[in-house]
Amino acid sequence: MDYRGIFEDAVDSLRQEKRYRVFADLERIAGRFPRAVYRDASDNAREITIWCSNDYLGMGQNETVIAAMQETAGKLGVGAGGTRNISGTNRPLVELERSLADLHRKEAALVFTSGFVSNEAAISTIARLLPDCVIFSDQLNHASMIQGVRQSGMQKHIFRHNDVAHLRELLAATDRKRPKLIVFESVYSMDGDIAPVAQICDLAEEFGALTYIDEVHAVGMYGPRGGGIAERDGLMERIDIIEGTLAKGFGAMGGYIAANKAIIDAVRSYAPEFIFTTALPPALCAAARTSIEHLKVSGVEREMQQRQARLTKAILADAGLPVMETPTHIVPLIVGDARLCKAASDMLMDKHNIYIQPINYPTVPRGTERLRITPTPLHTDEMIFELRHALVSVWASLEIPRVQADPAITASKLTSGDLTLPTVGG
Amino acid sequence: MDYRGIFEDAVDSLRQEKRYRVFADLERIAGRFPRAVYRDASDNAREITIWCSNDYLGMGQNETVIAAMQETAGKLGVGAGGTRNISGTNRPLVELERSLADLHRKEAALVFTSGFVSNEAAISTIARLLPDCVIFSDQLNHASMIQGVRQSGMQKHIFRHNDVAHLRELLAATDRKRPKLIVFESVYSMDGDIAPVAQICDLAEEFGALTYIDEVHAVGMYGPRGGGIAERDGLMERIDIIEGTLAKGFGAMGGYIAANKAIIDAVRSYAPEFIFTTALPPALCAAARTSIEHLKVSGVEREMQQRQARLTKAILADAGLPVMETPTHIVPLIVGDARLCKAASDMLMDKHNIYIQPINYPTVPRGTERLRITPTPLHTDEMIFELRHALVSVWASLEIPRVQADPAITASKLTSGDLTLPTVGG
Ligand SMILES: Cc1ncc(COP(=O)(O)O)c(C=O)c1O
Ligand SMILES: Cc1ncc(COP(=O)(O)O)c(C=O)c1O
Repeated sequence: MDYRGIFEDAVDSLRQEKRYRVFADLERIAGRFPRAVYRDASDNAREITIWCSNDYLGMGQNETVIAAMQETAGKLGVGAGGTRNISGTNRPLVELERSLADLHRKEAALVFTSGFVSNEAAISTIARLLPDCVIFSDQLNHASMIQGVRQSGMQKHIFRHNDVAHLRELLAATDRKRPKLIVFESVYSMDGDIAPVAQICDLAEEFGALTYIDEVHAVGMYGPRGGGIAERDGLMERIDIIEGTLAKGFGAMGGYIAANKAIIDAVRSYAPEFIFTTALPPALCAAARTSIEHLKVSGVEREMQQRQARLTKAILADAGLPVMETPTHIVPLIVGDARLCKAASDMLMDKHNIYIQPINYPTVPRGTERLRITPTPLHTDEMIFELRHALVSVWASLEIPRVQADPAITASKLTSGDLTLPTVGG
Repeated sequence: MDYRGIFEDAVDSLRQEKRYRVFADLERIAGRFPRAVYRDASDNAREITIWCSNDYLGMGQNETVIAAMQETAGKLGVGAGGTRNISGTNRPLVELERSLADLHRKEAALVFTSGFVSNEAAISTIARLLPDCVIFSDQLNHASMIQGVRQSGMQKHIFRHNDVAHLRELLAATDRKRPKLIVFESVYSMDGDIAPVAQICDLAEEFGALTYIDEVHAVGMYGPRGGGIAERDGLMERIDIIEGTLAKGFGAMGGYIAANKAIIDAVRSYAPEFIFTTALPPALCAAARTSIEHLKVSGVEREMQQRQARLTKAILADAGLPVMETPTHIVPLIVGDARLCKAASDMLMDKHNIYIQPINYPTVPRGTERLRITPTPLHTDEMIFELRHALVSVWASLEIPRVQADPAITASKLTSGDLTLPTVGG
């Protein structure tokens, strides 16, 4: 049997579709983020600017967060040394779970090795424990949520993206006596849009469903204490399970859920993805907790991120670049063609030392290939102007059509208030 | 709908079966492992000795490994800041994958966020890519492997634990033309026994099957460079996919597979558990690589671990404690009753400041509940004698029957060579 040939063919088919991925080899420079050292295929190193990091607030480069990791490693060592049950539960992990429960004003929280694992484990376990449960899942939910839904083996209905009328129809058509679980995200990371969280909560109440929200792209970044969109909109109490990551806004690694004690204890006791794996290292837990606690009291990172995102959108839109208007910090530039998108990304890196990964299928639907830009508080105004210059030049070289600026985001709409720099402690 | 009640009932049923788990809250003390600070339910702290860690060689407490984490965090920050494809591939991660490929003498390696995820992702993706694949899976395979097998959706046959005759029967009964994947472990962590790796490779060759081995409890610890049982037995070349963890023998966190380039590229390109999750933090990668490279050239940790395991088995067996003979570093003491096993563990902690987690269902079959002891190079001879004393006292208090010492492991069989202390660099 020619096994090797089968695997090679599978990968070749990706190459033909221009979906074969080559990972950019990066070395971020602590203290100088978003600058990083990039190594090309011939191992030549040079400095570039990252414009597509999900270390959204630069907290992974924050000095106190780094110091927490270093100090804890010095005191407790590197790995946790065991599963949660067999010697792996460590003090910083216990404290991290408390910090997360407090962030979301829930009775308890549970930490997993990643946001992916938290979705897979929590959704599948919760659904399996509810006899004859039906899951209602947003059409654009993340791969990890889809995996959780599938793994539960329970019946599922997919509702059209953010479409509460459709969700209502599906709920109404389901036996009132069956347990129901609605799973959705708050901020969808590729289009940067926000779910109608309050309306979904209303429906959940009306039809007696549990609500499960993925706030992976919102925690740390929205709400007065960084609790996410549900906090911002005063809805945390109405959501049964809030899921988040420690790897994006908080700049570390790991995932979690926050909920009432009964749900947390059940997932803790039944999810194989939680039980049969080594616990998160103490140094990572300490770093994550430092970051969470910092963002509970400091709003300056959030404000500055919003400011730079607003400015980036306006400046790029004014230059006729196809910026998608979003109510969030995410700035998608739609190219709509896998080959062209990759070419634009390559040219940005090769000619302009700017790194923006092309996003293609299966991460986004075919025909909506894009450059996804994520301005952080650490991108300066000057960098934004450099970015515009580079994009305009690439658009011209590759003859990608320019567009009329969306009137909603043109720079002339910016007020001086929009561009005021936040003051530390604000 | 009383959702809370349903979750509470699910957890109550565990309580009734004495399977409800309370995690021990620990703070290991770098430089003094296996000593740690334990906090009881009332948050009172005291020093104890851990006897059940899977930081098998104490590498998570190794000074150079800790320093690698600290230095890399200082230079590159905490989190990776993105998925592998979107800005998350970092230099230390690329170097770690090279170090792992070299360890197992394979063309390439791929790192995941945990050993659990590596099994789930790799087994399911490999099987799915092979049209009409049949999986042959050892009956005692780990939960993460079972999850990978199940998630592939492919047909599976379970062979009796380590039973090559049964495996042969199942292979012979399967259409020769179908792709086949045999998945098994090298060291089974709960009984400490070793798979007949060479014979399984023979069968794979005869029937044209791929072989997938989980060396999670062997890497770092067996073979002249810590490549595991397959290295020790000169079989690495005959195994198609070697899976391991960075979280046990290597003392860090993360999982991996090593294989030929075609397999690695296919898993890299198709596994959602790999694609849609934040990459491992650079500081963890650097720590893991330092540990791996150290153990490639230093045998003293392996030798000392084997010495302390041998001594522990002999000393406990001589005292009439029910030690299971194993060919590995794992020392199971069979109690055979969930309640008694928990009581013994509690008494060890409360009266003797010794922490050994009781292992019960579903981790081991009911009726084989046990205390699983893992001597490390850092457990002193004195600690072993203290352990014997404590266990004898607990066995007497709880009236657990003692047994005749297994003649294979009685202390009188130990030779002076068995107890020679290894010399550094050996
Ligand atoms: C919506 C969503 N949920 C979950 C995850 C997974 O989180 P993590 O990177 O911590 O695994 C991601 C992305 O990585 C995501 O975009
Ligand atoms: C055989 C086996 N494979 C895989 C794993 C998972 O490895 P990790 O802890 O890195 O997730 C474990 C235990 O944790 C295990 O015992």
